[in-house]
Amino acid sequence: MSEPSRNLAIVIDAADPDRLRDFWVAAMRYEPYGSAGAYRSAAPSQGSIGPKLVFQQVDDPRTGTKNRLHIDIIVGDEIEHEAERLEALGARRLTGLIVEVGTSWIVMADPEGNEFCLVYDT
Amino acid sequence: MSEPSRNLAIVIDAADPDRLRDFWVAAMRYEPYGSAGAYRSAAPSQGSIGPKLVFQQVDDPRTGTKNRLHIDIIVGDEIEHEAERLEALGARRLTGLIVEVGTSWIVMADPEGNEFCLVYDT
Repeated sequence: MSEPSRNLAIVIDAADPDRLRDFWVAAMRYEPYGSAGAYRSAAPSQGSIGPKLVFQQVDDPRTGTKNRLHIDIIVGDEIEHEAERLEALGARRLTGLIVEVGTSWIVMADPEGNEFCLVYDT
Repeated sequence: MSEPSRNLAIVIDAADPDRLRDFWVAAMRYEPYGSAGAYRSAAPSQGSIGPKLVFQQVDDPRTGTKNRLHIDIIVGDEIEHEAERLEALGARRLTGLIVEVGTSWIVMADPEGNEFCLVYDT
């Protein structure tokens, strides 16, 4: 293809964008990036790559509905250690280790209840 | 920091994961990547960077609730041209051009109604 792939960011609604950013910065080993109005952002440290994350303050609370989009955090065989680290940061485990289609993962939720998967990439 | 930032993928629930992948492949100028069970994935072309996108077939339809996470597609001053291209691929415009906090964007929806923003990055 003649044109490069598009630049992409992930925007997450938040009741408390500062706290949610703190969680995801620690989870992803990102760094705080910027702040404007209702928005806070985070980006990989210099030398790393990954999409920018943006946390947008919204007044409407999460409903009980599962998010239609979610983040997978890809890790190696330190998955159990990583799940414990994320719990210590304020995440919750929603499942045990699920093994399917040649992959395994744990479903977790961030401090505001957004589901994400911790995925073991062989 | 001593450890690199985490690898991340974005997983999108889909009624029709093949069709939704086709849309996002064209929208992001990605390429189809793999297929396993209820999952289809897409990744940047060789030489480009960006997170893997995974489309997961689910039976529960989208509710009317706005997604708590969404994707921003970052473009330059071809934003209007790009909005037209995405409409031709099956997206809908949900707003006109919104100008706020030094940025401007158009809110759109993919063929399954998932909101995303087309963001003009100056």
